[in-house]
Amino acid sequence: MTEDNRARIGILTVSDRASSGVYEDRGGPAVRAYLEEVLTSPWEGISRTVADDQHAIEAALVDLCDIQECCLVITTGGTGPAPRDVTPEATEAVCRKMMPGFGELMRHVSLAKVPTAILSRQLAGIRGGSLIVNLPGQPKAIAECLDAVFAAVPMCIDLIGGPYLTTDERRIVAFRPKH
Amino acid sequence: MTEDNRARIGILTVSDRASSGVYEDRGGPAVRAYLEEVLTSPWEGISRTVADDQHAIEAALVDLCDIQECCLVITTGGTGPAPRDVTPEATEAVCRKMMPGFGELMRHVSLAKVPTAILSRQLAGIRGGSLIVNLPGQPKAIAECLDAVFAAVPMCIDLIGGPYLTTDERRIVAFRPKH
Amino acid sequence: MTEDNRARIGILTVSDRASSGVYEDRGGPAVRAYLEEVLTSPWEGISRTVADDQHAIEAALVDLCDIQECCLVITTGGTGPAPRDVTPEATEAVCRKMMPGFGELMRHVSLAKVPTAILSRQLAGIRGGSLIVNLPGQPKAIAECLDAVFAAVPMCIDLIGGPYLTTDERRIVAFRPKH
Repeated sequence: MTEDNRARIGILTVSDRASSGVYEDRGGPAVRAYLEEVLTSPWEGISRTVADDQHAIEAALVDLCDIQECCLVITTGGTGPAPRDVTPEATEAVCRKMMPGFGELMRHVSLAKVPTAILSRQLAGIRGGSLIVNLPGQPKAIAECLDAVFAAVPMCIDLIGGPYLTTDERRIVAFRPKH
Repeated sequence: MTEDNRARIGILTVSDRASSGVYEDRGGPAVRAYLEEVLTSPWEGISRTVADDQHAIEAALVDLCDIQECCLVITTGGTGPAPRDVTPEATEAVCRKMMPGFGELMRHVSLAKVPTAILSRQLAGIRGGSLIVNLPGQPKAIAECLDAVFAAVPMCIDLIGGPYLTTDERRIVAFRPKH
Repeated sequence: MTEDNRARIGILTVSDRASSGVYEDRGGPAVRAYLEEVLTSPWEGISRTVADDQHAIEAALVDLCDIQECCLVITTGGTGPAPRDVTPEATEAVCRKMMPGFGELMRHVSLAKVPTAILSRQLAGIRGGSLIVNLPGQPKAIAECLDAVFAAVPMCIDLIGGPYLTTDERRIVAFRPKH
């Protein structure tokens, strides 16, 4: 299999502190570690870090979707109620269609851990051939949220024309209907 | 009771293949069979089939609501993430107010069956005197989703000025508050 | 502590009948009674009653947020599907960002009581330094809905720059992460 067959996955850290270097990014590496553990099909991660600025987030998402041709873009950070938290707004602005089930389910599972899970405004949507999924910034919430939704991600990528992703079934059983 | 007293219910199948005759519509008949089983008050079904085209779906919804005067319009199909799946967008475009609780609950009950339930973007909304509810296209998901929400449908129709619907209580107990 | 340190909380009753005096407001007093029972930090309630008119609701929300400087505004009424129920639309119109987790969770807990909980379109959002939360109009649903979400309210107010709220922990344990 050549490098061209590898699925391209964008990992976008949204954080004023991480982007200015005040603070080491922990969210992006946590997303990458999760994908390394779960995906068994070949893939390549494309990491970016931007400030909590709506235009900068939109530009990074458009680049990852349209130029880098990522089939999946996972963001971490900027989903809360604070004035600088605008990742969901940036995501909605660049998506053609929204996927409300992702945010609903991630909040639902996070609520079993902390009552403040309702403050996370994370959402998901489709831009062209890319699925964009927002995650909170806290590293410990990342695996929890991805575990909740990842079984549906490969079929979603199939439906939008992307590469065939496979997972380590000891970890995540990707669901695809039998025809 | 004259025919004029019958509740009018629109059943809209959204499918490129069913609308072009490539494929027999199974979603629309599944919705009709469900209503025949559950409703005990007189009703008349008005069935339509359209392609997965946003303008065609909007036009069919407007006709069923405004001209056919349906108090309830149930759509089947076009709720997924694929590029041609635009039933939720068409529904939102013709509704004055959205009813987020329907989609949330239908996805929640479907999740007990398949993890890909989060890919269904189905929603519900109100246009004038009509409640529009999106369902997925798979016939087996239709009864499952309607069972989840139907107990609230008669009271919703009451509140928007429609006919008094009654249900077979062995199947669905329509809830109305006691005053 | 001087009066200036008291948190200001808006309580907005939305009801044609209560605003015209046909009917005694029971929702607003139920919200106030809840806050008196739960909050242990000093606060002052600012009550308003308006008709089910979108412009009037928007004007009252803007006044409570921008002029009265309430950190929290709780509305009661106008969340259903009836033509005059427009509180969610007015709320969304004045908010910069929406908090979907509040409505999802309140509907989820109300569903354990009545299947018509899905008809409540209540939502929450942020306008500047104010969190606005919609509740249904029925007095008995008010404590039920606030119990579901209130543990997250103090941290939300912290994140938008408001006063430090504390609660009676026998009733609600406000969650704040340990740093």
